[in-house]
Amino acid sequence: MATAPSVSYSMTVRLEVPAGGTAVSQLTTVVESSGGHVTGLDVTASGHERLRIDVTVAATSTAHADEIVQKLRTIEGVTIGKVSDRTFLMHLGGKIEMSAKHPIRNRDDLSMIYTPGVARVCTQIAANPEDARRLTIKRNSVAVVTDGSAVLGLGNIGPKAALPVMEGKAALFKRFAGIDAWPLCLDTQDTDAIVEIVRAIAPGFAGINLEDISAPRCFEIEARLREALDIPVFHDDQHGTAIVVLAALHNALRVVGKDLGGVRVVMSGAGAAGTAILRLLLAAGVRDAVVADIHGVVHAGREDLADADGDAPLRWIADNTNPTGLTGTLKEAVVGADVFVGVSAPDVLDAEDVAAMAEGAIVFALANPDPEIDPAVARRTAAVVATGRSDFPNQINNVLVFPGVFRGLLDAQSRAVDERMMLAAARALADVVGPDELNPNYIVPSVFNEKVSGAVAGAVRDAVERSRAEAAETAETAETVASGEPAGNA
Amino acid sequence: MATAPSVSYSMTVRLEVPAGGTAVSQLTTVVESSGGHVTGLDVTASGHERLRIDVTVAATSTAHADEIVQKLRTIEGVTIGKVSDRTFLMHLGGKIEMSAKHPIRNRDDLSMIYTPGVARVCTQIAANPEDARRLTIKRNSVAVVTDGSAVLGLGNIGPKAALPVMEGKAALFKRFAGIDAWPLCLDTQDTDAIVEIVRAIAPGFAGINLEDISAPRCFEIEARLREALDIPVFHDDQHGTAIVVLAALHNALRVVGKDLGGVRVVMSGAGAAGTAILRLLLAAGVRDAVVADIHGVVHAGREDLADADGDAPLRWIADNTNPTGLTGTLKEAVVGADVFVGVSAPDVLDAEDVAAMAEGAIVFALANPDPEIDPAVARRTAAVVATGRSDFPNQINNVLVFPGVFRGLLDAQSRAVDERMMLAAARALADVVGPDELNPNYIVPSVFNEKVSGAVAGAVRDAVERSRAEAAETAETAETVASGEPAGNA
Repeated sequence: MATAPSVSYSMTVRLEVPAGGTAVSQLTTVVESSGGHVTGLDVTASGHERLRIDVTVAATSTAHADEIVQKLRTIEGVTIGKVSDRTFLMHLGGKIEMSAKHPIRNRDDLSMIYTPGVARVCTQIAANPEDARRLTIKRNSVAVVTDGSAVLGLGNIGPKAALPVMEGKAALFKRFAGIDAWPLCLDTQDTDAIVEIVRAIAPGFAGINLEDISAPRCFEIEARLREALDIPVFHDDQHGTAIVVLAALHNALRVVGKDLGGVRVVMSGAGAAGTAILRLLLAAGVRDAVVADIHGVVHAGREDLADADGDAPLRWIADNTNPTGLTGTLKEAVVGADVFVGVSAPDVLDAEDVAAMAEGAIVFALANPDPEIDPAVARRTAAVVATGRSDFPNQINNVLVFPGVFRGLLDAQSRAVDERMMLAAARALADVVGPDELNPNYIVPSVFNEKVSGAVAGAVRDAVERSRAEAAETAETAETVASGEPAGNA
Repeated sequence: MATAPSVSYSMTVRLEVPAGGTAVSQLTTVVESSGGHVTGLDVTASGHERLRIDVTVAATSTAHADEIVQKLRTIEGVTIGKVSDRTFLMHLGGKIEMSAKHPIRNRDDLSMIYTPGVARVCTQIAANPEDARRLTIKRNSVAVVTDGSAVLGLGNIGPKAALPVMEGKAALFKRFAGIDAWPLCLDTQDTDAIVEIVRAIAPGFAGINLEDISAPRCFEIEARLREALDIPVFHDDQHGTAIVVLAALHNALRVVGKDLGGVRVVMSGAGAAGTAILRLLLAAGVRDAVVADIHGVVHAGREDLADADGDAPLRWIADNTNPTGLTGTLKEAVVGADVFVGVSAPDVLDAEDVAAMAEGAIVFALANPDPEIDPAVARRTAAVVATGRSDFPNQINNVLVFPGVFRGLLDAQSRAVDERMMLAAARALADVVGPDELNPNYIVPSVFNEKVSGAVAGAVRDAVERSRAEAAETAETAETVASGEPAGNA
């Protein structure tokens, strides 16, 4: 699959060329003939003899960028100056900062923001801890926590190397939902230690976003933190992905005129994202789901459902999927299937596999950067195709979800995040695409669609309120029962 | 000691008064006769019959503010509306926020700040971890860490109630030194846990500011973290205070024409701040220091030098102070002393004690809010008096120190903070007060003096460079010695 030049491999080349002659016009030709794109060309200084020009070029890789610079060097009369990598320039000194909301101009400001005035606010919170949500940053703060063990597709690169991703995430939290997030990159990959650390730093935050923590540790860490904390804990790699996939599936099914309850969904991949997607699809009403991992279809008869540690992540899958008792390979399972969801590895399917799916096939090939099948190939027979890539239609991108989900949780001062809230978020995201907009190449809105974050947040907020009302009702009923009154009178 | 009305107890009272008559003119009279100050009076709506007025009033306490409102209520024709507490208003929703440095306007921005472009930056840092200081927020980030065990004078109020102080601290870091600090309020007071947590969160920060952690745990936590981390760890309550005290003492001694090496310093208080002040004074050249705690002067003959746990915080003091072998009470020790430094409790000295000190006595009565002796009383016989309060001259305020110290440490990419750097910071802070400005009521500059932070930062940066050069020289000498060459030739 050919890769298009991308702004993420974008550089600005400062060069000098003779003022006369054809050197200037050759610049663009050389770049384009090398497979790059000229995205900007500024004359930054001009004299009688020479021009200084900044040419901004998108390439397909670092090596490709170097190659283009070498080609530019061969133009007669050209002198190459500084070559700046635009992505690296944007990272210099970090991408986020802390700001004070009020100016500190004089002694009066100081005595209200800091001592002695601040002591009164502390005393108030000590007497009534819930006031921390009113009188401190807690109300709007989220900790973005990683141990650097599974960063993007790069693997276990450690906490320092993970920091640029966490900063980016924090920047997106602000951009799309006005949330103040701060990265915490942990120098430990011990499950107990991570749980203890996140538990301990929680008082200053209203939510925890776990990020890029490898499976299966991420499951235990999340579960134990949800148990321990009175603020929502959300592992975006799992639940963010699951919500976007469900939203996209809602709309893809609208395109092909099928129902969640009536389709057979075949999934490739039983890792963190795969498991979360599966659970949410089942909660949403999918009745026939089949999961395949590297050893083939998961079914009750397989002997590797438990691992050496006695954990049995596949056991739950075997117990809750595959109602028709399929065995064999992924390729065998997709025959006649309505939906394929891949969160696994490149090129596990080919054109014939997709062609063998049911009429109106839906293919979500989400392995990144190289999908389970080339989307252009899948599109030959499938009705709807989605990927994780930004250079194809229907990008399954978590940015569509996590800002709005946390906005809703924070606004509702939620103490947890549950399946009801996630289902509501998926439905709201799907509904941002109006009936007149829906088509096979537009099943999810753009991340820059201004309605997305607010719609998701509103749905989550409502779901929190419903969960809260039900909990109150249950508590009331329990109380009535306990006091001997008939529950029906409550 | 009478307390003056303070802006930290400031409220805005919205009231309506008859448009005619004397009600308006009575407002100010009533406030002032109640002991408050009117600091603002705005007519916010006017009609033929009634005026709506917002009166801003400074009081001495919450009770006093309530009392003033009651008095205003008695004015004929006045209706009291909303009463807003200005300090609380400034705390609503918290005092700091996170901001992104670059706009995220479109797909191109997204692909450089986040995926896929960010992956290249991660890869670069994974290959060369030192690049985290260049390509992430680490370069300019400080964690403000507390366990809420000794917050201001409020004691053990816990992590949530401590948050307003830590936010204020973060705001001051930005205001005075451009540093991005984020508060971490820990829900544990276990020494081992705190050490483990701070060690683990360190990758994303270039410095750790410990804050409001009670003694003696703060000593062990700081010592173990300094051992474990490759970034500076600074307990501001100890070292910030010590640096300002030393700076103030430098200048107080200039005022009275004495030398550090020739004076007898008597200290009251052997807690976190007291111990740190003592150590820095000794490092600066004080030869005759005497420390008293609640049981009197610390001397080698006391039987309580070790506590029940076998720790012996007083042993070090006994071994390093009191060269003339004083015993007895604090009041006995101050007779003939040149300098008194109190970091203990209110009213441990009286006018006679200060009068019994040597000619040109220097009194630093730093207990807050009520000093060891009323500064006005001390000033009758002492040549120089300083306190921790903002409503007297010569305020010993850590804000003079911690922003500049961290600015210097971060700029020099220091891996530690040592006594040399602290001595340099104190000297630089003292020198901000020029010879023509120095007088008994001006031994430290204002916190709003623009030279302070830069002067302190520059001195710390230079000290880091000197420590680094010496370490390199030592290493080189060691190498030369090891290789059999005479060290003198290195």
